[in-house]
Amino acid sequence: MSHVFDRLIDATRAARSRVCVGLDPHLDLLPPDEKGKGPVRHVRDFLFEVLAAVERIVPCVKPQIAFFEALGPEGYALYFDVIREAHRRGLFVIGDIKRADIGSTAAAYAKAHLAADDGSAADAVTLNPYLGLDGIEPFLKVGRTKGRGVFVLARTSNPSAKEFQGEGGAGAREGEPLYMKVGRALERWGAARIGERGYGDVGAVVGATHPDEGALLRRELPRTFFLVPGFGAQGGTAADVARTFDSKGDGAIVNSSRANLFAWKDSPDGARRYTELARLAALEATKAIEQAIA
Amino acid sequence: MSHVFDRLIDATRAARSRVCVGLDPHLDLLPPDEKGKGPVRHVRDFLFEVLAAVERIVPCVKPQIAFFEALGPEGYALYFDVIREAHRRGLFVIGDIKRADIGSTAAAYAKAHLAADDGSAADAVTLNPYLGLDGIEPFLKVGRTKGRGVFVLARTSNPSAKEFQGEGGAGAREGEPLYMKVGRALERWGAARIGERGYGDVGAVVGATHPDEGALLRRELPRTFFLVPGFGAQGGTAADVARTFDSKGDGAIVNSSRANLFAWKDSPDGARRYTELARLAALEATKAIEQAIA
Repeated sequence: MSHVFDRLIDATRAARSRVCVGLDPHLDLLPPDEKGKGPVRHVRDFLFEVLAAVERIVPCVKPQIAFFEALGPEGYALYFDVIREAHRRGLFVIGDIKRADIGSTAAAYAKAHLAADDGSAADAVTLNPYLGLDGIEPFLKVGRTKGRGVFVLARTSNPSAKEFQGEGGAGAREGEPLYMKVGRALERWGAARIGERGYGDVGAVVGATHPDEGALLRRELPRTFFLVPGFGAQGGTAADVARTFDSKGDGAIVNSSRANLFAWKDSPDGARRYTELARLAALEATKAIEQAIA
Repeated sequence: MSHVFDRLIDATRAARSRVCVGLDPHLDLLPPDEKGKGPVRHVRDFLFEVLAAVERIVPCVKPQIAFFEALGPEGYALYFDVIREAHRRGLFVIGDIKRADIGSTAAAYAKAHLAADDGSAADAVTLNPYLGLDGIEPFLKVGRTKGRGVFVLARTSNPSAKEFQGEGGAGAREGEPLYMKVGRALERWGAARIGERGYGDVGAVVGATHPDEGALLRRELPRTFFLVPGFGAQGGTAADVARTFDSKGDGAIVNSSRANLFAWKDSPDGARRYTELARLAALEATKAIEQAIA
């Protein structure tokens, strides 16, 4: 069973791209459903076309389950169909589910999202740390038998993130902000299973919108792989995200959602060329990040 | 549009019970599926029978969505069927989803879980505070148009809760533990919509396993309604949970999951009498809490 982040690092090297295309199907931002297929089928076709368009460009996609849940139970089923299709195309899949619960409840989530052997389970899922290790362990237990992993929220990219996560430097450990305390715990939890590339199987979500904190986390958590949201639309630049990579250019994957999926909206004939525009946006994001790291 | 916690308080007074029956369908703990109905139908029939058995005893049920997700997309659909059935029987429904995300993603979750007008939306959902107000506001926006609310995790009942939530007294505000900082934020956020019974529409999850902290939160957050898990199986006593109520005996609802649903396992002929035993367990929990408060 190969290690989850060995697989992801190998995939990014093979693709020469450190970009993960976020699949956030806001119904209001999709091209019009001209054939009247209905929302679930319309989203399905749109995402399947996007997967075909980006499969040779990026190593990874990240479906956001909230938008699938908003389509009702059929949308929830579609989330797993999209993962299967992404796997069929050789993509690494991060399931953005941000779940967190304890004991047998967390185990039930792990069963739902990280256990299946039919291609419908994500390679890694996002989790929330508020409940402590009890909320993470059941996922690790399943993940470790399947070569899958987790990304736990540390410093998120949103404006109110600092409200509870804190902000600023590490300082003395006693008084350091919560995001760093969480980050250190993730480094510790992941140390039980370090892959050949040097990373544990407990990743961290580190928003691109806080570049100084991202750089600090990179330095303090040398064995923790980062998922970096907030690039592009939310304001994080390529130079910002470059600071979350290690000296070999490994250790992070940068998510780009709206810039890819909704690139068509900025073009007058975009609704006819959305897959081409999604592909170009993925290429552009890839290029910007490769240049910033080089 | 009546206020979410006015409705819940009126329901607890009418039922003379402050107990919420948790619906956590662990497949392994259910009576055997003797008729070979398959897991989804088996869980459905079990829960529908339990709802019929407890509807006149308790005011509220709390389906835990993780166990439905573990049954696959059909299980996810069943979660909403169970909410509809509970509403048909006049029960207040807390959807235990512990979701949290930001902006349009949180809005998508709110659409999925708090918006529907066909009886399938919970009256209140549980949320995770890690992302700050950005992760809560989209739910409040929907909830306030529908007379629905949220319970946000403050001090959870699990052993590793203190890892990030902190523990102990409030102390000076500067150095106080995260759970209290979160609690104060909930009190502030809920103040925008106080009901006739004196509570805001942003509730807090306060575990019964930390009675001193529960009592402190009750004193410091006089307008925040509490959902209290951890009673019974997890070790919280009736005397412990009594401290989370206000002087009128309002302000909290106590969840009881395993003691009710799985009472049948402690009885030699339990598999034939599980609805009766669930009913008796709900009565017992109700009686213990009413006596402790009186």
